[in-house]
Parts: sequence; structure tokens; C-alpha cells
Amino acid sequence: MTIQKPRGTRDFLPQEMVRRRYLENRLREVVGRWGYQEVVTPTFEHLELFTLKSGEGVVGELYNFKDKGDREMTLRPELTAPVMRMFVNEMQALPRPLKLFYFENCFRYERPQKGRFREFWQFGVELIGSEGPDADAEVISLATAMLEVAGIKGDLHVGYLGIIRHVLSSLEVEKQGKIMRLVDKKDDMGLDYYLEEINAPTDLRMKLFGLISLTGSEAISKASNLLGPIPEIDTFQQILTLLDAYDIDYTIDFGISRGLDYYTGMVFEIYAEGLGAQKQVCGGGSYKLIQLFGGGDVPSTGFGLGFDRIMEIYNIELVSQKTVVMITTQSTRINAIPVACKLREYVPVYMDIMNRNFKAQLSYANNIGARYALILGDREVSQGVLTLKDMESGVQESLTLDEIILKLTGESN
Amino acid sequence: MTIQKPRGTRDFLPQEMVRRRYLENRLREVVGRWGYQEVVTPTFEHLELFTLKSGEGVVGELYNFKDKGDREMTLRPELTAPVMRMFVNEMQALPRPLKLFYFENCFRYERPQKGRFREFWQFGVELIGSEGPDADAEVISLATAMLEVAGIKGDLHVGYLGIIRHVLSSLEVEKQGKIMRLVDKKDDMGLDYYLEEINAPTDLRMKLFGLISLTGSEAISKASNLLGPIPEIDTFQQILTLLDAYDIDYTIDFGISRGLDYYTGMVFEIYAEGLGAQKQVCGGGSYKLIQLFGGGDVPSTGFGLGFDRIMEIYNIELVSQKTVVMITTQSTRINAIPVACKLREYVPVYMDIMNRNFKAQLSYANNIGARYALILGDREVSQGVLTLKDMESGVQESLTLDEIILKLTGESN
Repeated sequence: MTIQKPRGTRDFLPQEMVRRRYLENRLREVVGRWGYQEVVTPTFEHLELFTLKSGEGVVGELYNFKDKGDREMTLRPELTAPVMRMFVNEMQALPRPLKLFYFENCFRYERPQKGRFREFWQFGVELIGSEGPDADAEVISLATAMLEVAGIKGDLHVGYLGIIRHVLSSLEVEKQGKIMRLVDKKDDMGLDYYLEEINAPTDLRMKLFGLISLTGSEAISKASNLLGPIPEIDTFQQILTLLDAYDIDYTIDFGISRGLDYYTGMVFEIYAEGLGAQKQVCGGGSYKLIQLFGGGDVPSTGFGLGFDRIMEIYNIELVSQKTVVMITTQSTRINAIPVACKLREYVPVYMDIMNRNFKAQLSYANNIGARYALILGDREVSQGVLTLKDMESGVQESLTLDEIILKLTGESN
Repeated sequence: MTIQKPRGTRDFLPQEMVRRRYLENRLREVVGRWGYQEVVTPTFEHLELFTLKSGEGVVGELYNFKDKGDREMTLRPELTAPVMRMFVNEMQALPRPLKLFYFENCFRYERPQKGRFREFWQFGVELIGSEGPDADAEVISLATAMLEVAGIKGDLHVGYLGIIRHVLSSLEVEKQGKIMRLVDKKDDMGLDYYLEEINAPTDLRMKLFGLISLTGSEAISKASNLLGPIPEIDTFQQILTLLDAYDIDYTIDFGISRGLDYYTGMVFEIYAEGLGAQKQVCGGGSYKLIQLFGGGDVPSTGFGLGFDRIMEIYNIELVSQKTVVMITTQSTRINAIPVACKLREYVPVYMDIMNRNFKAQLSYANNIGARYALILGDREVSQGVLTLKDMESGVQESLTLDEIILKLTGESN
């Protein structure tokens, strides 16, 4: 019988893994240069961690289960809550700010569609213990630097929830939350209906709709005209001035609200071309979650990059390594072992382990795209040489092992 | 409220992750040089994949669950079955042998104890489409080469199940399986009792007990005396001759049976010092699983390294990078941004994002163990220089950015 992989998941073949690891390592270099350090948390967590953060409604999209000890567990749908839990449990005494990153898989039960999988990878950053324009600008700049090594000049939208929260400050917290979620969904009709329902003041409605429709270069001055001089606008302006210093292009967008109550101030999203409807490759902002998980009142700022989406548009030609396939006879194979062991200090080396004849071994070297065949037949053994065949040019040379090492390590391609 | 990580799982802090990634990358280099390529399979699979391989009894140790589509799923307890499933589904047409590796997490529900976790990592290798002494010897040698870069000179035990299967060949397959599992558990009393129960011939009992007690350098000749000249002993001898050519120390051990019916010939285990009772760091052999999963009659050989156990005894001092912490004032911070961006092309750079004063910034640099503080105060801005302070020696120098880059990239430590 044939068993398939679970629906909505993927098997990654070698060629794809080379590309994925290459980009992963480039992203690791970038975060390292910005002083961010890796953490890893368990693949599953207590279900409560995510319902506490996102409400009971989230359970419908989770891979949750009871373990054999009857505990409610779930595969993680995202990494921010686990990293904050880890901070509360184990990192509160470390010097702040803490600059953390993760590159891990997440899981969500939803209808599989183009660019959306049930197991997917996130590369994310959490800056803990720092808040304000400098922290906000650093995190946004880091996100754009990461996308840059992926070859993506994204369309960065930045907003500041402090301003919308200022407008809503006369309402109760739950009403504010509901409104933020409607803004996030860009459900203007639903928003209008809800404001009607709670009998919101006309002035508030006018300011809210005015604000969330503002985008682009004049959004700040228009917001000032609409709301008057409020400190939140000044703070947002400071973030933008720092982004200019980082030499980053952005679009002001008061319509971003990220849908969750724990975002406090700056929010941002980055979109990329070539992805169709699922064009968001990054989202983040400043938030407070640590108190909710039993820690102190510690601010944090972070984002997640959708690694799989980036891979969809990641365009790279990797130079293949100079793989050597050793071609032997049954009697010379044992002489080839120390040669292979020595060459493996420099390049990938394949040995025949199929008892194939000369022709079949050469054909295998050809099929796997090896750059060189290294022939060790009876003649070579008796003469103390090796025959190196360049599979691209077809040229054969009789060389010693030292000469071959020199050749393989000295060439640039 | 404080939420804990699930029992038996771990959070990995930055310092530990640096060590883990370092070893992971060293192991990746080794498998790459041997021509093995990475595959990744889903974290969860249909439960059936593992019950088919290991029997229903395995379910008691699994993290299995029903997904929201009422399908029986499980977190993978190991990677061999998933890789074989992937081969059957997607790789049967590729040139053979296929040389694959994986480095992934696995899950098992069992009592947590020293060195055993509910989420753990395996670094494994599967050589598909090749069998016989050359394949066996290559795979064993690769395992020892990997342990070598981890600084482990393991105690390698090699056996050959073909020989024990030869002794048992007169019995039905199920009885053979039961006997192999008792041998694997080293349950001599249970074995004796079972042989009595099935009324096994005295000659068979004598040969079996004689064989499984054989270890060490004379085991082959003793097995020959015991069983007479059988082809399986010759094959085993060929593997050992190849291991000698690879310059590998081993102990012959006919008591290894790996407990599962799908192992066909060579089996091996490697033990390491310093791990107490859980001293096995590697286990593998040649096996047939592909037909069971709906593929052809394709042989394979592989092993898994217990990455977490290796980490327990992995002893490395990593040279820390030359981290630079920029020390700024509120007014110079904006001048520091392009400097930081430039330096990040070469070294990790931290910016102050806490609005700290001079002294508090220096103290942070000290707390995180930064090698350099790079001071950009009002004086430096007006003079067009930077002050580089070596945090180890305390020496301060006024330098230009170009001079600093030269200094940071030119030094060897």
C-alpha cells in the first residue's frame, strides 16, 4: 500500500533544500550582524498559551490534541507567544534589551491553497525590554535588510496604533478591541454598523474613518489636521525620521492594525510582488504580552517573515560544488578508499557501492551531474597515478593525488 | 499566570543554540563531502506509517492525535519511515543510489529522564538502492567520520543479522521475529523460555546462544567453527575487510539485532563514554522497508545519530565574535545609524535603543561581553572621528571609520 504525506504538508527534495538552507544561512548572517541571537522552543505547547494570547476562537485553526497524560497541547501556530513564555520562565534576569531570533516551523489547520500550507516556516525577531522610536526603527530596518538579501525590495507600510487608540480612548477596552479587528479586516461596512450599534459619537466616527483611510506621504500632516496636535503623532514622526536615517522607503498607512489587542504602538507590514493575493511577506510591531504570561511589564517589538512565501519568489542560481565520482574496478575499490577519504577533506566524493562496471559508473557520474570522474583502474594502480576526467570538457589527465588536490582547490569554478 | 513548557521538552537559550548550530554545521559538512543531500519531511505523518513499520505496539509511545478532518496523525517518532515514504512517493525515478540525510526533531511520549526527552533531534543518513559490503562499509565509515568531528571516538559494534537469520531459517517468520526482539533486549531467560515453548531443536538453541554471546576479534572464526562454512560469514568478513581499509576500529558483536523485522544484514551501534546508561549515540544497519510502503524491492542502509546525547558530551570553546556596541548620545544617535549599517557588513553591531546615558551604555556593552565599544559623542561628530574602546585592554583610540574596518577585519582575534 502507498501512504501519502498529510494534506497541506510538503516533502522537500534535495535541490529545494539546498536553496532553502542557502537563504536561511544568509538571513542568519544578517540577524547575527545586528546582534540578534537564536532561541528554540518546543514544537508543541500547552494550548492555553495561545488561547490566552489570541482568545478561544483560535482553537479552530490549531493542531491541538490531548497528550497521553490528558493535557491539552497544540502544535505552535506562531512563535511570539512561545518566545515570550520562554522569556518569562528563563530569561528575565538577563541584561536588556534582549535581541532574539528564531527560524522554526509552525502549524495551522486551514484549507490548503497556493502559498498557504499546514506546516510552514517563520523567520522572526523579538526585541525584548526596549520600546520607543529607536527600537521600532531598528526592527523595521532589520526586516528590510533581511528581505534585501533575499532579493526582495518590498513595499513597506508603517502605521502607529497609538494614534487610533488615542481616537478610541473614550471607549471601553473591549469595544476598542472589536473596532481594531474590524479595521484589520478592512471591513468598513461592519465597522460602520458596529459604531452605529454602540452609538459612538459622530466626531469619533468621522475621525476614525478619516484616519484609517490615510496613506502616503501627506498622511501625517492630514492626521494632524484631523486630530490636532497629539503626542502620538510626534512619536510616529520620530520613527519616520529614523527610518529616513536608515535610508528606507516606506508608505505611511493608518489602516494597519494587525488584529490583536496586544499591539501597542508601531505596526508594519511588507508586501512583495509576484505572490498574488498572499503578498504579505512580513508583519510586526511593538506589543506587550509578557505580563499576560506572568512576567513584568516589559515591552517588546518584533516581526515574522513568511519564509515559504519568500522562497516562492527567491531567485538564485547556486554554483554546484565540484563533485568527484570515483570510478573503480572490483579489485581496485579497496585502493580507492584512502583516496576518497583524503579528497573528502576538500570536495564531495562518491564511491561506487553498486558493483557497477566502468561504463555504468561513468553514466551514474553523468546522471548526477558530477563535475569530475576520477578513474582508478588496474593500470592506474600499477603506475601510481589517477585519471581525472572533466565531465564538462571531456578532457582526461593522468595525475598524482597531490596534483588533483591542487587542481580541485586552486580553480575558481 | 505563568505557563510552563510541556514536560519533557526544552527551551534552548542563545548560548546553547550557538553550540548546537556549530556542531550541526560541522556534521552537514561531513555528509556533504560524502555526497549525501538533505531532505525534509513533514513533522507529523499518518499514524499508519509507523504502525505499519513497527506494529500497533508503538502507538503507546507516540504523540498521536486526530486532526480536525478526523484523520489519525502522529508526530514522527523517527525519520526512516518518513524518508522511505517520501522515496516511494517522489524519488523512485531518480538515479541510484540515492544518498540522503536529514537533521530533524522527533517525538516520543515516555517518562522523561536524564538524556531522554519528549522532543529530541536526530541526524541521520539513508543510502537507498544499494546493498552489500561496499554500501555497508560506507555507511558505517560515514557514521564514525561524523562522530569524529564531534570529538567522539566511539566504541563501534558491528554485527550481521544474515548469520542469525541463517540459524533461524527453519523457523516460521513470526517466530524468527519474536526471537530477534528477545535477542535485542538481551533477555536470555525470556529467550530460553520461548525456545522451550516452541520446542526448538537442541542444535538450533545451542547455535543461537553460542552465536549471540560472540564478540571480539575471534568472533568470526568461532562463528565458523560453530556454524560451518556459510556464505553469510563470508559477506560479513568482506564488510570487515573494507572497514579495515577505511582504517576504522570495531568490535564484532553478534548480539546486536536492533529489534525490528526489517533489518536484513549488517547492523551496528556506537557507544560513547560519559553518558551513563544512555550511552548509545548511533544505531543503524541495512534494511528493507520500501516494499512495505508500496514501492519496489529496493534495499537501503542507514543510521541515526542521537544529536542531543552527542551535545551532552560535546566539548567546544567557541571563539566569540568581535561584537561592537555603539555608544551614542541622544543627539548623535542619528549619525550613528549609517556607521552601524556600514560596520554590519563585517561584524555584529549593537545600537542603543534604550535612551541610556553614556555610563549605562558602556555597562551594557560590558554585560553582554562585547569586545569593543565604539563611541560617537558630540566631540567625535564635530571632529569627524570615532573612539574605539577595546573592552578587554581598556585602550581607547581615535580612528576614522575606514581605519576601524581595517582593524576589525585585519585582526585574527
